[in-house]
Amino acid sequence: MDIFEAIKGRRAIKHYDPNHKMSAHEERQLLESAMLSPTAFNIQNWRFVIVRDMEIRKQIRAVAWDQTQVTDASMLVVLCGNLDAWKQDPQRYWRNAPQPVQEFLVPAIKQYYEGKPQVQRDEAMRSCGMAGQTIMLAAKAMGYDTCPMDGFDYDAVGKILKLREGMVISFMIAIGKKMQDSWPRPGQLAYDEVVLENGF
Amino acid sequence: MDIFEAIKGRRAIKHYDPNHKMSAHEERQLLESAMLSPTAFNIQNWRFVIVRDMEIRKQIRAVAWDQTQVTDASMLVVLCGNLDAWKQDPQRYWRNAPQPVQEFLVPAIKQYYEGKPQVQRDEAMRSCGMAGQTIMLAAKAMGYDTCPMDGFDYDAVGKILKLREGMVISFMIAIGKKMQDSWPRPGQLAYDEVVLENGF
Repeated sequence: MDIFEAIKGRRAIKHYDPNHKMSAHEERQLLESAMLSPTAFNIQNWRFVIVRDMEIRKQIRAVAWDQTQVTDASMLVVLCGNLDAWKQDPQRYWRNAPQPVQEFLVPAIKQYYEGKPQVQRDEAMRSCGMAGQTIMLAAKAMGYDTCPMDGFDYDAVGKILKLREGMVISFMIAIGKKMQDSWPRPGQLAYDEVVLENGF
Repeated sequence: MDIFEAIKGRRAIKHYDPNHKMSAHEERQLLESAMLSPTAFNIQNWRFVIVRDMEIRKQIRAVAWDQTQVTDASMLVVLCGNLDAWKQDPQRYWRNAPQPVQEFLVPAIKQYYEGKPQVQRDEAMRSCGMAGQTIMLAAKAMGYDTCPMDGFDYDAVGKILKLREGMVISFMIAIGKKMQDSWPRPGQLAYDEVVLENGF
């Protein structure tokens, strides 16, 4: 599918066919696409949790305003940020680069993140945002719709998923076969309010 | 361009033709595409600052590790998050939705963000991440390359752009005609390290 068609056609869809199954191949294509999204210093600071177990989906739905897409979508992916990616053997993120590039970049990673929890967290949210948009656009091209979600109790979902120390949840995406359209875009801002030139 | 081709072909490019100009139409197509990216509650909590003025570009480059793409790219966009979007007449984000939807959603916005600065900031980073990936993929489809950047002094760039109270910089994207390829992907993680099932 053409990219502009996917960008224009992507809408947050709430109602999915609960009987539709995505193939293992489709799942993998989607998440391998997400893994090609950019991250600063190539730290790949995302982890994607596919929630397959319907009991776990039900538990999540119970702390997500009972939104039906949590259980009805073919796939539910929780995008998590790894706050410690920068210090987990960062050499490996550049192992195939020329030696001088490695020698310059790898120490810069530590310098950028060490002792800066807000910088680590911002990076987690930003990286997951980019990867999430890749998932949503790729899914659209594959004939699916998506719903990005942050309307849930983060602490409760963290407990349900046994979130590891050093990981944060960024958001979730439900993916599946649409049963019902969304309403038209409900109130878009004017271009000139959003796009500025040279500063504020 | 097909979406998977854009996802696979997108790489962070550092060297741009300084003489290439993008047309006003291309710029607008790119940023209008970005404005179709999802945001929670449709709060559209991003602002895109196009830095046209070469003097300002030079000032930014001086606080961005002297990276040449800051001045040489055809377009430099600073993606900013609006921390206060949730309280700036939120009714307008849902003005075209059915009345019951408005009545349910608009009060929920305030409830979700009020008094929660970290939630507001996470949302800013996440929304800008999604919009940024839209820009990078759309640019690729338009025959351009991009470089997402967070290697700069945020406070200094904030001052240069006269960043308003309540706005935060998420990251910058340089966009233009590539002069030199990037090296091959330098060290990608294995699928099984990134993709988990049902929890940690």
